Amino acid sequence: MNEKKRGRLIVFEGVEGAGKSTQLERLVGQLARAGVPHKKFREPGGTKLGDSIRALLLDPGSTITARAEALLFMASRAELVSCELRPALDAGSVVLLDRFFLSTYAYQIAGRGLAGSDVRSANMMATDGLVPDLTVLLTLRADVGLERAERRSGPDRIEQSGREFHARVEEAFAEFATRGWQNSHEECGPIVAVDASGDESVVQARVLDAVTSRFHELRTVLGAAA
Amino acid sequence: MNEKKRGRLIVFEGVEGAGKSTQLERLVGQLARAGVPHKKFREPGGTKLGDSIRALLLDPGSTITARAEALLFMASRAELVSCELRPALDAGSVVLLDRFFLSTYAYQIAGRGLAGSDVRSANMMATDGLVPDLTVLLTLRADVGLERAERRSGPDRIEQSGREFHARVEEAFAEFATRGWQNSHEECGPIVAVDASGDESVVQARVLDAVTSRFHELRTVLGAAA
Repeated sequence: MNEKKRGRLIVFEGVEGAGKSTQLERLVGQLARAGVPHKKFREPGGTKLGDSIRALLLDPGSTITARAEALLFMASRAELVSCELRPALDAGSVVLLDRFFLSTYAYQIAGRGLAGSDVRSANMMATDGLVPDLTVLLTLRADVGLERAERRSGPDRIEQSGREFHARVEEAFAEFATRGWQNSHEECGPIVAVDASGDESVVQARVLDAVTSRFHELRTVLGAAA
Repeated sequence: MNEKKRGRLIVFEGVEGAGKSTQLERLVGQLARAGVPHKKFREPGGTKLGDSIRALLLDPGSTITARAEALLFMASRAELVSCELRPALDAGSVVLLDRFFLSTYAYQIAGRGLAGSDVRSANMMATDGLVPDLTVLLTLRADVGLERAERRSGPDRIEQSGREFHARVEEAFAEFATRGWQNSHEECGPIVAVDASGDESVVQARVLDAVTSRFHELRTVLGAAA
């Protein structure tokens, strides 16, 4: 399905506050210093339409049904895949993405309790078969992550969804971390779990190791620039 | 699936400018005069979230990919079904709806060329199995309808999609008009085609006939109030 793809799609996943954005930015810095063509995006968002959808989804003052929420995420994803991810990958870039299908699985299926088959069909419609080359799953206990996230700013609508919801999300991420990429869902592609506890630079070294182990062409350039 | 539903869901469909909104309002007037509990909605929209989505979808200045467009329509539908349609039907109201799955079929599948199975899966996720009790399909040549619509106001983003797009939409509606409710898709429920050419009051009489033929309980009350 991705015969023509030349770049690499690397997704960062994990519970709120696991450090996805921080670690993604650190990898961006390493790629930039090494002169590797790259682009970064986040979900929901990354396009004009996606940013409007993001504002609807995260507004702490709004209530949205679980089905509408999932379909909004998929609409944002469809636009991002068509307008940004595929063109960047076709141009040979390393594309770093903050959240993708694994978050859909954890939040919409495990968290909200929607039927997996429905959500996976909608995801297939959104991605048109685009699968990450690697998902870096940052693992952290959800309560530690939520505390980190709440320190940052007021909680958004999804962060406000309650302890039980976040426990289900955490459990889903933990399941993927245990299962690993060998038995992952086909939408996820390979998954590597990275321990996100401890100092940021320690986690960064773990992420670099995960990425360069997977992509040998990045080993020399990133190793030299690290 | 709809065992508990007591009201009636009547959908108005047809090409741009076929007179859906006008005829829906005329039926609202008849129901009001007859004292029949009723509610009216339109797609996309009908909820706070849906109205925000409507603004995104119709903005003449925006470009949206076909997949994102379809998923946005479905997100609006999911919210409308859960928050408005089901509660109103459960309360016994006659619910009049301006556009539903038939428009999805005509615009997203026939018009935009998306895979029918994908769109139908997303629609099932949005409706959770809610099927109209009757779809009144107003039939009119698309060029006549578009002329009517363009006289009303500047064309919105979807009206701007070009003659070929609208020809495919017209063809899809015509196909349903010919096929009728006997062989309709399960998502549509029964469909009755109503000739929308001619004077508004003439079309109104045709609509009334279609509705009261289908729902005997409305025949006496609406016949008396007409």
